[in-house]
Amino acid sequence: MIKYNLKKVEDNTNARLGILETNYGVYETPMFMPVGTRASVKGVSPYELKEMNAGIILANTYHLWLRPGEDLVRDAGGLHKFMGWNGPILTDSGGFQVFSLARPKDITEEGVKFKSHIDGTPLMLTPEKSIEIQNKLDSDIAMSFDECISYPAEYNYVKDSVERTLRWARRGKDVFDNPRQALFGIVQGSDYEDLRRHSAEELAKMNFDGYSIGGTSVGEDKETMYKMVEYSTKYLPIDKVRYLMGVGDPIDIIEGVIRGVDIFDCVLPTRIARHGNAFTKYGKINLKNAKYKNDFTPIDASCDCYACKNFTKAYIRHLVTVDEMLGSTLLSIHNLRFLIKLTEDLRECIKNNNILEYREEFIKNYYGDKDYLHKKTKGQEEYGSNK
Amino acid sequence: MIKYNLKKVEDNTNARLGILETNYGVYETPMFMPVGTRASVKGVSPYELKEMNAGIILANTYHLWLRPGEDLVRDAGGLHKFMGWNGPILTDSGGFQVFSLARPKDITEEGVKFKSHIDGTPLMLTPEKSIEIQNKLDSDIAMSFDECISYPAEYNYVKDSVERTLRWARRGKDVFDNPRQALFGIVQGSDYEDLRRHSAEELAKMNFDGYSIGGTSVGEDKETMYKMVEYSTKYLPIDKVRYLMGVGDPIDIIEGVIRGVDIFDCVLPTRIARHGNAFTKYGKINLKNAKYKNDFTPIDASCDCYACKNFTKAYIRHLVTVDEMLGSTLLSIHNLRFLIKLTEDLRECIKNNNILEYREEFIKNYYGDKDYLHKKTKGQEEYGSNK
Repeated sequence: MIKYNLKKVEDNTNARLGILETNYGVYETPMFMPVGTRASVKGVSPYELKEMNAGIILANTYHLWLRPGEDLVRDAGGLHKFMGWNGPILTDSGGFQVFSLARPKDITEEGVKFKSHIDGTPLMLTPEKSIEIQNKLDSDIAMSFDECISYPAEYNYVKDSVERTLRWARRGKDVFDNPRQALFGIVQGSDYEDLRRHSAEELAKMNFDGYSIGGTSVGEDKETMYKMVEYSTKYLPIDKVRYLMGVGDPIDIIEGVIRGVDIFDCVLPTRIARHGNAFTKYGKINLKNAKYKNDFTPIDASCDCYACKNFTKAYIRHLVTVDEMLGSTLLSIHNLRFLIKLTEDLRECIKNNNILEYREEFIKNYYGDKDYLHKKTKGQEEYGSNK
Repeated sequence: MIKYNLKKVEDNTNARLGILETNYGVYETPMFMPVGTRASVKGVSPYELKEMNAGIILANTYHLWLRPGEDLVRDAGGLHKFMGWNGPILTDSGGFQVFSLARPKDITEEGVKFKSHIDGTPLMLTPEKSIEIQNKLDSDIAMSFDECISYPAEYNYVKDSVERTLRWARRGKDVFDNPRQALFGIVQGSDYEDLRRHSAEELAKMNFDGYSIGGTSVGEDKETMYKMVEYSTKYLPIDKVRYLMGVGDPIDIIEGVIRGVDIFDCVLPTRIARHGNAFTKYGKINLKNAKYKNDFTPIDASCDCYACKNFTKAYIRHLVTVDEMLGSTLLSIHNLRFLIKLTEDLRECIKNNNILEYREEFIKNYYGDKDYLHKKTKGQEEYGSNK
């Protein structure tokens, strides 16, 4: 089980400082969760995750269902023992993968029929099946099965989908059977405030242990995404934790926190790492760039991660250039730590009531301008948020 | 500089216990050196190398010459600073790569002409150039440039080659110019005892800081390899350290130690790791094998490595099956630790004068029979010992 304690709402925004009690320790929110798609955060060991002060780790139900299978994970003693992670784990519902990775699909009231992205085997995921798998995986937090709608979407389609997702949430809750696990409902409704409100309020009546915000980062512009978040948090109970799914762009985390989000996840930090990219205060840089060839300074001199404390840009560039695994590992460690540190900074800002000043400074350094609002979100599909 | 102190020769064999003083600490021999071909031990961080009790690390002159270039490494403050390795480093001469990787070649008295294996650029490596590169890389131990002869080879060809390699060793020594670096000569001579003897004795007259044994693991059977080693150590000065190049099969390390070898290196442990293989007391196992699917025990319950203390075969098998980087990393850590631990055990055996009993027990467990002697060495070319 989990328990959320709201400690403070920032004076000038809806940013929340909270304490999340879990089966594996107590953590402050806002927090960023590294993604361990197939029971491994790509390129990073559990030891390195602890070192970077990671809290909850996310694992993917769809992928683990296919390989190695939920029964094997259960036989291993659950996901924690299986993957050697002595910290809390959140599993998604598999819904996002079914709708993005495993096309074509056939959505009925019963669930979703699709083909395995590995070998084309016909499969069906239902709200009950998703919960059954997650119960066996024995994560600390499970997600309700939902339809992840693409953007833009017609009002009537979204309305019907939201109703079905609410019925799915109810069905999942009814069969939920793991006393040490928490269950979240997922708010959908695209960019329609009344549908987001309806979704949030109906889920709240079912009294979930926490609430996720889905259907963002699917190609909408950032301003729209922030509205979707606002339309959701506004109608969610204040005493439960809120999780914005698949969002990991630094500015999106800041904007999400300002709108009352507590938890984030994204494959972005590890995925861009594998392509030679690093987050820095002054924006994303690509280490493949020739200008780093002779740069014997760390990625970020003020960063306390293993990569920045021990290696230079020139060395990491060399590793990336010759395709050494250690290059991906070091950049993954740095990028994950960057986002974890960002949430640590945001917690300080909430305590000091200066999150708006922090945002302004961050944007000035990271973007150089404020036009980022009109940029499209890279999209869970492109970043493969839950893939 | 380095200093070798012979502490003891085992009662029943030529196995030697020694102390090697280096610029980066004092280490006991026999020892196994992990290979960091391109200034990175594949899949493993410097922190993890320290954890597994690694001593000297090997890096490849040929590869670093091509990328990122020796001048860049010098500008970075030398190889230690560049790769973040706060321990001793040995560099090879580039000879092996030139003769195996960068064919076709044109050997003259001056040196070897060949084409870059990356882009076909015509290049020439000479004894002087090899030393100049290694001086700039600033390793702790440099190697003389030699011709690595394939097996089998005609007596007259080997005789001429050995003479030329001796002249190359002299030329390299003459231009050697790094007061904090040690320089080794390399014994060649294929499987001809008189040529090995001549090579060893002539090198000894030049008074190198240590001596390497080259030209083994190039496709000969194990019995022949052990003879080559014997023909070399027999004629080398007792007060200098001896390094058998490119050898990392466990039994070959034991047989080498028994014949008076102090240092070994090989890419074998990390290379086989990337194909899902692990060393165990009972032979090499492949984690891809279906029988490990539900095996919730460590690779080796008695092993003290990070992989064995924290993860099961079933989990590592899953990682290997779905191609997660962590699988290669954990198997690399285990395999490297296995060989390092093997040399630690051999040091104990030398102290206790029971290395022959240890060998017998090891062979019984690892091979199940004694026929391994007639097996071909996998060869530096196949294992890419110095690639």
